[in-house]
Amino acid sequence: MTHQTLLDVDAYIFDVFGTVVDWRTSVARFVAPFLQDIDPLTFAEEWRARYQPAMEGVRSGGRDYVALDDLHFEMLGDTLEHFGVAAEFDDATRWAMNRAWEHLDPWPDVLPGLKALRDRALIAPCSNGSIALMSRLARYAHLPWHCVLGADLARDYKPQPQVYLACCHALRLPVERVAMVAAHNDDLHAARACGLKTVFIPRLTEHGPHQTTDLEPDSDWDGVIQDLSALG
Amino acid sequence: MTHQTLLDVDAYIFDVFGTVVDWRTSVARFVAPFLQDIDPLTFAEEWRARYQPAMEGVRSGGRDYVALDDLHFEMLGDTLEHFGVAAEFDDATRWAMNRAWEHLDPWPDVLPGLKALRDRALIAPCSNGSIALMSRLARYAHLPWHCVLGADLARDYKPQPQVYLACCHALRLPVERVAMVAAHNDDLHAARACGLKTVFIPRLTEHGPHQTTDLEPDSDWDGVIQDLSALG
Repeated sequence: MTHQTLLDVDAYIFDVFGTVVDWRTSVARFVAPFLQDIDPLTFAEEWRARYQPAMEGVRSGGRDYVALDDLHFEMLGDTLEHFGVAAEFDDATRWAMNRAWEHLDPWPDVLPGLKALRDRALIAPCSNGSIALMSRLARYAHLPWHCVLGADLARDYKPQPQVYLACCHALRLPVERVAMVAAHNDDLHAARACGLKTVFIPRLTEHGPHQTTDLEPDSDWDGVIQDLSALG
Repeated sequence: MTHQTLLDVDAYIFDVFGTVVDWRTSVARFVAPFLQDIDPLTFAEEWRARYQPAMEGVRSGGRDYVALDDLHFEMLGDTLEHFGVAAEFDDATRWAMNRAWEHLDPWPDVLPGLKALRDRALIAPCSNGSIALMSRLARYAHLPWHCVLGADLARDYKPQPQVYLACCHALRLPVERVAMVAAHNDDLHAARACGLKTVFIPRLTEHGPHQTTDLEPDSDWDGVIQDLSALG
């Protein structure tokens, strides 16, 4: 039976990078053994800075869908070039470094929050990460999803509407019975435009101690929470 | 890190109805309150007897992909007609009964077996059930999958090869790094033909105490186990 949750919905779907897991410190820790004279946190930030531009080729229709695993690999090549060390990293080493994105630690509230929620509603990632990436991340971080939704289902990237719609369709739920949970206002604007409910959870150090973006909700989201345990 | 499992693979994908869960007694229990003069076990068997024919329309290409939730609903209508009681069940009641397939109990070895395995390999259903159905079943039965694979990804039904291939593709694994686990020899024949590894686990009472099918392996599968704990 479904018990009460924060919103009257049947499913909560989650942004993952930044909302569920702390990619910045996790990637830095993972790549540190591969780097010599480059600060791992700076490296992680430079790698991630190439995220939106990499997806834009697919979103614009100029390029067929490519899984994020492959985009991460391409972005890594650019990042290594940026630091002037590309020649030092062969493909096998790069693929090993690329596994960083499968080894991201959840924020402290995530596991208790999701474990309490999973008996009350369907829970799934709605991430730009592939099924493969999200599955390996679920194994590493013990994320208790009921399934993996997201970019692979729509073969396109958020904030394209078909990604949110494909998640609802896969769950056989009307959009208004599904809530998108994210630490990024733009993700929620896109979900709301599709008819989904919206929950904002600020992650004030996703981009480090001097973060300037997404410090607070910029709209009247259906829920604003400080901790996933507030969902139900 | 991945520790040793029964086979040298990165992922185990599972048939669900019969292999992971005991559909016969579970469906019977779920529908019993809806039935008056019909034996619930007989009803469950008649409902399930329409399973392969219902999928055949899709597999043959004569019908666009329809999720198993909808096929189950159609099969239920036929089953009610078979018992001469169709007029007594309106659509809302039928949809309520259809939820039976989301409330199936796992065999006793399943939860401990999967919980031990999930840190050592990727685990996912490769079922003809939809993502929606498998997600709700995962919630009900606490199945600790890393993701849900299966018919929805391929938009076709086992034993069509594209279902097994779509699962491997979604996990970004070569077929020989994935093992199919099933209580049905025909499922394993189809998986092996695609290049997957194969594990047979007999479920001697799936069809009741007088079962005559799949009592033993009919080929030299890569593994034959009596209990999921044997996987790793």
